[in-house]
Amino acid sequence: MSSLPSSPPEQDSDEHTAGTQPRLPADPRYARFIVDLFGVMAYGELSGFERLSSDARFSPTLHDRATLGRLAVIEFEHFEMVSHHLAALGVDVETAMSPFQPSIDSFHERTRPADWYESLMKAYVIDAISDDFYTALAGRLDASTQELIGRIQSADEQGPLLQERLQEALADDPRLASRLALWGRRLVGEALTQAQRIGIERAFLGALLFAGAEDDQEKETLLLFSQLTRNHSRRMSLLGLTA
Amino acid sequence: MSSLPSSPPEQDSDEHTAGTQPRLPADPRYARFIVDLFGVMAYGELSGFERLSSDARFSPTLHDRATLGRLAVIEFEHFEMVSHHLAALGVDVETAMSPFQPSIDSFHERTRPADWYESLMKAYVIDAISDDFYTALAGRLDASTQELIGRIQSADEQGPLLQERLQEALADDPRLASRLALWGRRLVGEALTQAQRIGIERAFLGALLFAGAEDDQEKETLLLFSQLTRNHSRRMSLLGLTA
Repeated sequence: MSSLPSSPPEQDSDEHTAGTQPRLPADPRYARFIVDLFGVMAYGELSGFERLSSDARFSPTLHDRATLGRLAVIEFEHFEMVSHHLAALGVDVETAMSPFQPSIDSFHERTRPADWYESLMKAYVIDAISDDFYTALAGRLDASTQELIGRIQSADEQGPLLQERLQEALADDPRLASRLALWGRRLVGEALTQAQRIGIERAFLGALLFAGAEDDQEKETLLLFSQLTRNHSRRMSLLGLTA
Repeated sequence: MSSLPSSPPEQDSDEHTAGTQPRLPADPRYARFIVDLFGVMAYGELSGFERLSSDARFSPTLHDRATLGRLAVIEFEHFEMVSHHLAALGVDVETAMSPFQPSIDSFHERTRPADWYESLMKAYVIDAISDDFYTALAGRLDASTQELIGRIQSADEQGPLLQERLQEALADDPRLASRLALWGRRLVGEALTQAQRIGIERAFLGALLFAGAEDDQEKETLLLFSQLTRNHSRRMSLLGLTA
């Protein structure tokens, strides 16, 4: 935590009720980090929306199409929340997103669902692990950023819905279990590789949040990743699957 | 208009403010018509959402992806408005939509956009002509149905946005004009054929709304279709295209 600015920028905890405009932190390294963080979140949500809504069409029933459509719309609403926040900070959302476009696109290419159930599973695994990741970061950040991340999480209706639908599918077709267990392992592996790559590319975790001796950085990163993996295993167990 | 029930069911003009529950008209023919109308609207919006959001991914810029995503989300919100209304009437939305699934799916198959600009044009042409069609019907229907159709139209931000983006694209690349003009003609032709087919299949327009002598039915249908075509031509002119 020694790397965070000693006097964090005073920002209102809710820019929607107060007359004050949220602004970028004065510390240029921290400001850049915030822009990167919201940029990667925004592009993650936008591309998640597009993938999920494209896959909705292949749902087995009209009811499922409507359900997946709603989940996609929630991702878009999260994208808009982050966009508006960036705009309020005076940052162009496209500029903030573009550095992360190649790696997120390639993540999606590497994890193309083979069918509707894999698409459902992808949303279940990736949304949850992203939420965990941003929540872990939020605790180390300024109030205004924490508040936005909290607002996005609390608006999240997706996890329980996806879990319920997956449980139903697994009950209907027990042969799905081994395929989805394998798919879940592949997804989490790709997601963690991706998170590390972004972390390294943008000096995301290492240089800023876990600054200090190099040993400490590695230790903190390992701790975070083992926590993410543990939570993932717990979510797989909820489906009766081995992570 | 002689076919409409002589005493239209008393429904609240806004089911959201009053304690009374909207209910299906007592006349079974009119009740079936209302279920069909909302069923075709709901499936049109749901499938429009899925197509538009899938195509959003191929937008030339991140800004366009966000814009198309928003338009898709509006279609989904319309779907939800109709769904909630059907649910309030005690009608299962999937049951109401399913008779229209084959013809709307096949419409989309026949009008698959070759690129992003054709996708934009499809949204521009089809949303507007559907709106015109439902508005023309609304004038002949009960207050509660009129109110819902009016609410969907007034929530419509899509037309001006699409028009502006298409104008921009046509200014950037004048060669687009002849392709999009041709595409617009194809779309409107398919849409009117589709509307007539649904009308015939479900005894939609003929038997119910324009009942009376067979000549009158044909005359009313022709009048409606020529009005739809006129509005379409006007919208094409706004883009500098010949309908």
